[in-house]
Amino acid sequence: MEHIRTPKVENVRLIDRLTPRKSVVGTLYLSSTHTIFVENSDARRETWVLHSLVGSIERPPTTPSGSPLVIRCKNFQVYQLLLPQEKDCVDIQASLIRLSRPDRYGELFCFSFQPNVDKEEREKAWGFLDLHAEFSRMGIPSNLWHITPANHEYRVCDTYPSELFVPKSASPAVIVGSAKFRSRGRLPVLSYFHRDTSAAVCRSSQPLSGFSARSLEDEQMLQAIMKSNPASEYMYVVDTRPKLNAMANRAAGKGYENEDHYTNIKLHFIGIENIHVMRNSQQKITDVGDMRSPSMGDFLWGLENSGWLKHIKAVLDAGVFIVKAVAEEGVSVLVHCSDGWDRTAQACSVASVLLDPFYRTIRGLMVLIEKDWVSFGHKFSHRYSHLEGDPKEVSPVIDQFLECVWQLMEQFPCAFEFNERFLLQLHTHIHSCQYGNFIGNSQKERRDLRINERTHSVWPHLWENRAEYINPLYRADHSQSKGILRPVTTPYCFKFWKGMYSPAERGVALRQSPSDSLNAVREESQQLEEELSAHQERLAQLVGRKTSGETRKRNGVTERSHRLIPKDSEVSSPQDYFTCVSHAPSFTLPLKSPTTPKSSDPDDLSACSDLESGVADLSSHASSACDDAKDPDSD
Amino acid sequence: MEHIRTPKVENVRLIDRLTPRKSVVGTLYLSSTHTIFVENSDARRETWVLHSLVGSIERPPTTPSGSPLVIRCKNFQVYQLLLPQEKDCVDIQASLIRLSRPDRYGELFCFSFQPNVDKEEREKAWGFLDLHAEFSRMGIPSNLWHITPANHEYRVCDTYPSELFVPKSASPAVIVGSAKFRSRGRLPVLSYFHRDTSAAVCRSSQPLSGFSARSLEDEQMLQAIMKSNPASEYMYVVDTRPKLNAMANRAAGKGYENEDHYTNIKLHFIGIENIHVMRNSQQKITDVGDMRSPSMGDFLWGLENSGWLKHIKAVLDAGVFIVKAVAEEGVSVLVHCSDGWDRTAQACSVASVLLDPFYRTIRGLMVLIEKDWVSFGHKFSHRYSHLEGDPKEVSPVIDQFLECVWQLMEQFPCAFEFNERFLLQLHTHIHSCQYGNFIGNSQKERRDLRINERTHSVWPHLWENRAEYINPLYRADHSQSKGILRPVTTPYCFKFWKGMYSPAERGVALRQSPSDSLNAVREESQQLEEELSAHQERLAQLVGRKTSGETRKRNGVTERSHRLIPKDSEVSSPQDYFTCVSHAPSFTLPLKSPTTPKSSDPDDLSACSDLESGVADLSSHASSACDDAKDPDSD
Repeated sequence: MEHIRTPKVENVRLIDRLTPRKSVVGTLYLSSTHTIFVENSDARRETWVLHSLVGSIERPPTTPSGSPLVIRCKNFQVYQLLLPQEKDCVDIQASLIRLSRPDRYGELFCFSFQPNVDKEEREKAWGFLDLHAEFSRMGIPSNLWHITPANHEYRVCDTYPSELFVPKSASPAVIVGSAKFRSRGRLPVLSYFHRDTSAAVCRSSQPLSGFSARSLEDEQMLQAIMKSNPASEYMYVVDTRPKLNAMANRAAGKGYENEDHYTNIKLHFIGIENIHVMRNSQQKITDVGDMRSPSMGDFLWGLENSGWLKHIKAVLDAGVFIVKAVAEEGVSVLVHCSDGWDRTAQACSVASVLLDPFYRTIRGLMVLIEKDWVSFGHKFSHRYSHLEGDPKEVSPVIDQFLECVWQLMEQFPCAFEFNERFLLQLHTHIHSCQYGNFIGNSQKERRDLRINERTHSVWPHLWENRAEYINPLYRADHSQSKGILRPVTTPYCFKFWKGMYSPAERGVALRQSPSDSLNAVREESQQLEEELSAHQERLAQLVGRKTSGETRKRNGVTERSHRLIPKDSEVSSPQDYFTCVSHAPSFTLPLKSPTTPKSSDPDDLSACSDLESGVADLSSHASSACDDAKDPDSD
Repeated sequence: MEHIRTPKVENVRLIDRLTPRKSVVGTLYLSSTHTIFVENSDARRETWVLHSLVGSIERPPTTPSGSPLVIRCKNFQVYQLLLPQEKDCVDIQASLIRLSRPDRYGELFCFSFQPNVDKEEREKAWGFLDLHAEFSRMGIPSNLWHITPANHEYRVCDTYPSELFVPKSASPAVIVGSAKFRSRGRLPVLSYFHRDTSAAVCRSSQPLSGFSARSLEDEQMLQAIMKSNPASEYMYVVDTRPKLNAMANRAAGKGYENEDHYTNIKLHFIGIENIHVMRNSQQKITDVGDMRSPSMGDFLWGLENSGWLKHIKAVLDAGVFIVKAVAEEGVSVLVHCSDGWDRTAQACSVASVLLDPFYRTIRGLMVLIEKDWVSFGHKFSHRYSHLEGDPKEVSPVIDQFLECVWQLMEQFPCAFEFNERFLLQLHTHIHSCQYGNFIGNSQKERRDLRINERTHSVWPHLWENRAEYINPLYRADHSQSKGILRPVTTPYCFKFWKGMYSPAERGVALRQSPSDSLNAVREESQQLEEELSAHQERLAQLVGRKTSGETRKRNGVTERSHRLIPKDSEVSSPQDYFTCVSHAPSFTLPLKSPTTPKSSDPDDLSACSDLESGVADLSSHASSACDDAKDPDSD
């Protein structure tokens, strides 16, 4: 509690930004993990805001009515408070600034978060997703692709996973030589294998080609990738950067593949901008979502001026290009950018979502994020500012991937098993540091931090609550849910993501979702089926036939996989947005964690142990693991 | 056939604007009513374009590959042809210009259109909608409101319906006096009565107040309206124009109500722009939808620059204001603009859609258009350019109403019984002149043209095909489908209407609609119910109980009203977009109308008699009916 000067302030006003007259008065508490506002009303509604989700805390000038405090969260939720005393306001701001920006991994919430899960269960939870099984689902290993032990103990690349899939024909010398010729040793390895055409999506960082350097091993590596797709005579190298940026990198001894040296490659630039452009653009789109009563002109001008949708389109276009190559031409693709952990992750994972219906399911999207983002060393802690650090490292890279998925969901409403809420929840968990999955910047760092022993995994938690994330329009046997998605990417097809960037209106959007109606129809179907089943059994008994008790299958109707819808849709709690509503009259904050009433989600962010845990200082581990993870991204 | 110089051109190429390589070669025919393109392929696919739907015909410069012709339809569909000979192209253009712009009502398609319907059926069809019944649904006549005979034979106002509902307390002298003090005699009369609060939505044109004129009768008329809502002590006058425009009208002896003379009124300006601003804005939004491969910046800039969504928001805001007054404050409203036939129709009908769930059904929207647009003298023939006439009279007034409904559908996906296709089909029929409903500029004109005897009504036709227009998300018992809609009208909530303004992508949008999936779920429910029913019967027989054969009602499950979904969703034919696909090998065009295969919609625009009918010249009637319908709309 060392950073908390003022743990409790009374007569605080929580301003409703949409409808100021709905503002309420209550008491503000600071715990070591949350800011908590408890309404003075009989209902004693509580609003919990996790410190690690707080992005900024502003203190506008004091007015006659009080001293305002604006808490902006990394999930774009904004809380506006009015405190009676300026002194309290200053104190709260100072405490929150410190609490929301830990400078050591050990201070992160995941290390003190203790849901009601025993050790065995926690260990099992970390095995919930299995990337081995995922590659084997793709048919890998095969006679042409296998695991190389080259990266055991992260010897060739400390930001890659230890297990890498490469062409069988690539010798250890080729692997090591290729790694030496790539930025940070991120050699070309398999990301996705498309069984139908035997074409592969591989990924790497840029080659260290400068103006004239070459590496026979790297050239052989690409040749091996191409040859692992026996039917094709060439392959694509997709450089996701704008060509000018790629060219500029040559001056630093980096750059892109020289088509004279690499035989049978076709080089293609996509033009996704770098992390700095994206950071600035997101700031602008956030401002657009944050405007109060904008005119139509303000809004549309802001939308255009932010450039955001242009960038989303670029990422989606990268995916579409890869899909055309892999699925239509049957040609393998090597994708890279500069370091191969931002734009490359975007392009590969968007392509995967388009290519493979599995990634359009709840479990599939988890697997995809685990594979292309977590295991391949997307720098979560740097990009999402988990610790106090270089603000130039921050960038909404995975936000853009999630938004591409959302834009696709808008275009193909029946193709995705999950709904918008799932994407928003993923986004929040990536920032919240409640679970260990997204802590650190690489697999090696997480191993060094002993994440698996010391924190919990978010995946089983999300899976348990999947009923909340079901898209009622999804049918596994729908044409959109099978095979490849071919989105239209003309500008008409892109929308402002209100649910993400205008969260004040989230409630409105969700209330008006078609889910309610659809779930009702679905439930009705289900009830009918059950009744029918019962009748059939009775019928069978009456006519003396043997009853089997089997699940009934009707002609032409597949078994449905959507039995996850909760009977009471009220259960999907406002906790998604870090607002916990309690009707318990007794209140013991902030010394003890409250029981979370009427929630299906007992260990979500808002309900937690808020003990300052006795976790050892791991900053030495952390910093050593991070030493060479500095990312100039100089394009 | 007098205007057709070249009835047939071979080896014409129909360009697919989205995918040029999908362009096809075929033969072009001109009939007296349609342009028809028949593919040379075995399928002999036909594309029919109604002359009266053609908005413009451009002939870009001849190229080595041929002479291009671009046909732009009033429903924003575009057909791009390439003819081998420039001479043919010139001829076709000249013919189409003439055929698409008749200068006499008698030349309009509705007077020659002869679906397979006998005289009795046609007469019955004209009684399909009953405005008497509609007012009685609202509870009118009542002890406070009644029909006045004042406008019998259109004596006080020739652009109003002959039957007007007014406060019982308004004497004939007050009615006549008020009419004299209003532009074109359009006195305040009832448009919608809200039973729950007894508040009324009335409509009129502007008062002839100039800078100082007043009329005691008009003041008494407003007083009578206010008094007909016993609970309220004031009423609103909503002037839908920008205040500056309203003030400018005073110089011409028109203007708005002086609050010093009219006691207990509150004047409110909305700021909907005039028809000229709207015409220009729609031209710009159409250009946006027509851009080929626009960049995101081009698109968003174009969207903003058009101002279109700003205008849509203004119309919706007008409706929202009226709803608040009527439903929340329980206060009556008089709505007017200049003449009371454009912005007034928009504001009253948007308010009605928000206030009354009936208008959110298929039949309800028909009734609403019949009441607030057709009967109240919206100038369809002028606004939608049915005849060659003053281009300054043309304006997308009802387009904006339909778009408001569409924007509401996007915001409340379960609230509307109909889908987007219904709105697009209405829009097309308003322009097509195939049916008599939207011909002329007032009820009197239609009477003088003997529309009921000489043409067919579109309403029963749309009703028969309602299965195509069902919104599968609609449930009559859903909260959105009951009571009042309270839309959010922040700019975030408005979208570019791709289905209307980017019709090249319409097919894409429809293919990807959630309807398919939902209809499947619904059908499944239905099948299950039927099976269950059968089982129950069998069960009842077996246990010796008496079977009733009644339709079964289950606990808590309401009877569903959506049994209109066609079993084969393929039936919803591309005819909606005036493309008729025929697989008949024999082809007898253009001398005989083809049978329309696999269509549920045998008398739609594309399948018709194309005989030049022996209809008498009615231009004298028409012009006399229009003499004083000139609309300077001078604000």
